[in-house]
Amino acid sequence: MKPETVAIVGLGLMGGSLALALKETGAAERIIGVDADPAALEAAQARGAIDAASSELGAVRAAGLVVLATPVRAILRLLPAIGAQAADGALVLDLGSTKRAIVGAMNHLPARVSAVGGHPMCGKETSGFQVAEAGLFRDKTFVLTPCARTSPAALAQAQALAQAIGARPVILDAARHDRLAAAASHLPFLVASNLMSCVMQAAGKDELMWQLAASGFRDTTRLAASDTQMMLDIIATNRENIVELLRDCASGLEGLAALIEDEAEEVLSARMEAAAAARREWGRHV
Amino acid sequence: MKPETVAIVGLGLMGGSLALALKETGAAERIIGVDADPAALEAAQARGAIDAASSELGAVRAAGLVVLATPVRAILRLLPAIGAQAADGALVLDLGSTKRAIVGAMNHLPARVSAVGGHPMCGKETSGFQVAEAGLFRDKTFVLTPCARTSPAALAQAQALAQAIGARPVILDAARHDRLAAAASHLPFLVASNLMSCVMQAAGKDELMWQLAASGFRDTTRLAASDTQMMLDIIATNRENIVELLRDCASGLEGLAALIEDEAEEVLSARMEAAAAARREWGRHV
Repeated sequence: MKPETVAIVGLGLMGGSLALALKETGAAERIIGVDADPAALEAAQARGAIDAASSELGAVRAAGLVVLATPVRAILRLLPAIGAQAADGALVLDLGSTKRAIVGAMNHLPARVSAVGGHPMCGKETSGFQVAEAGLFRDKTFVLTPCARTSPAALAQAQALAQAIGARPVILDAARHDRLAAAASHLPFLVASNLMSCVMQAAGKDELMWQLAASGFRDTTRLAASDTQMMLDIIATNRENIVELLRDCASGLEGLAALIEDEAEEVLSARMEAAAAARREWGRHV
Repeated sequence: MKPETVAIVGLGLMGGSLALALKETGAAERIIGVDADPAALEAAQARGAIDAASSELGAVRAAGLVVLATPVRAILRLLPAIGAQAADGALVLDLGSTKRAIVGAMNHLPARVSAVGGHPMCGKETSGFQVAEAGLFRDKTFVLTPCARTSPAALAQAQALAQAIGARPVILDAARHDRLAAAASHLPFLVASNLMSCVMQAAGKDELMWQLAASGFRDTTRLAASDTQMMLDIIATNRENIVELLRDCASGLEGLAALIEDEAEEVLSARMEAAAAARREWGRHV
């Protein structure tokens, strides 16, 4: 896979990292960066991540592969214009964190372009081009969600792109992706954010809290610092799955409180040990 | 501070790391390791962490400083025997994760020994001497909780020990420690364990879950792998504080679910952004 020209719309952590990865691996001939923020374009050019910079969406016309790397609802807003501007035969790929809404919108693209949904399972709690890195996708799962516009050739091209940057492509139905990502990714963010809120409230009564918070607190709350706009877009496009899991999680905590109050140590122990064993087992494979 | 001989009871992660730290910094003349597990004693001797090994509590008699580094309820069981066996004028220090119950038990020690509660705010989700390291306490908060048996000289000696291994001693009332540690440490563990349980349940319906779980899931659930016995002892000796926080946390998640369901994006955004800002601010100081 070596499309002559790749256009990346959105040069934040994901889009910027993709540009750097394509440069490092030589998997693209030429990269056009498109971003409304001149500072992001400048930073990407300064690091040699892109060959050309534009603040205009029309710049995608020169590309055989157009990658949309903005938050989910911005992708949804951009798709019609991309459909109008992309070259005949171009492949449109996105890197958004939820897939049902995007794949639905991709189905409305004109027949002269092909499209496939994408979600690399990696990220950081920090955002922007300044934290982008070529190795971000290495050994990570890269979900591809086909839509009505996905030809076998388009899917093969997307798989080759994922492999070229060191990721492991996994082809998945969009609805199944959204169910799985709700538990594996969106719930952990909300749990971390909520934990941070609870500890802030407790710290309001005693400021010394922050001195006692150590590495366990650090890791459990890390995701709470994630970009709010990105998370709001995820939540708005995966509501039902997320709400169901939040309620499961809340009743799980209520259950733990009741077990602790009732001194039901055997049940509590079994529940904690099952979680510990599963976490150790998963940890061995990552 | 250079007590001729330090006895450390319990050569797991904490006791083992203390032995290694005292060796590395030369802050002890001689270290006696006491553990019921011959493998732990052997491992500690092989790494040069201790000068003498014993499976008998009576070995503490030779020490000017006795450090109890077992789970909390084991410390509570050991304290009367330590009171009987420790040398006249010895200082008894513990490293247990909750402090009210321990300080209460320390108050019953014979007047011929002094004692102070201790809790270094550091740890790992793994346990045992094999994961011990000399640098564990470096730049970490080391809480000291005085009891009726804590003379000014004993407190100064404990502070000097904490400083000798690179930690920052913070003197705190035991009840205040337990309130703060419930939020900063015990709650994050239970939240991580509960999240792991929820995701396991979701993964029961679709095994592909584990391939989509990435670094965010990894960090948010890391604490779920912690030693169950240690956590049960913490919970049993800090019940009220933990139950209250678990319920706050559960209702916080319920609140998030309701906001998401109601599409109350402004309130949701403000709540998430406040947590994100606080987490970024705290992150700058650690």
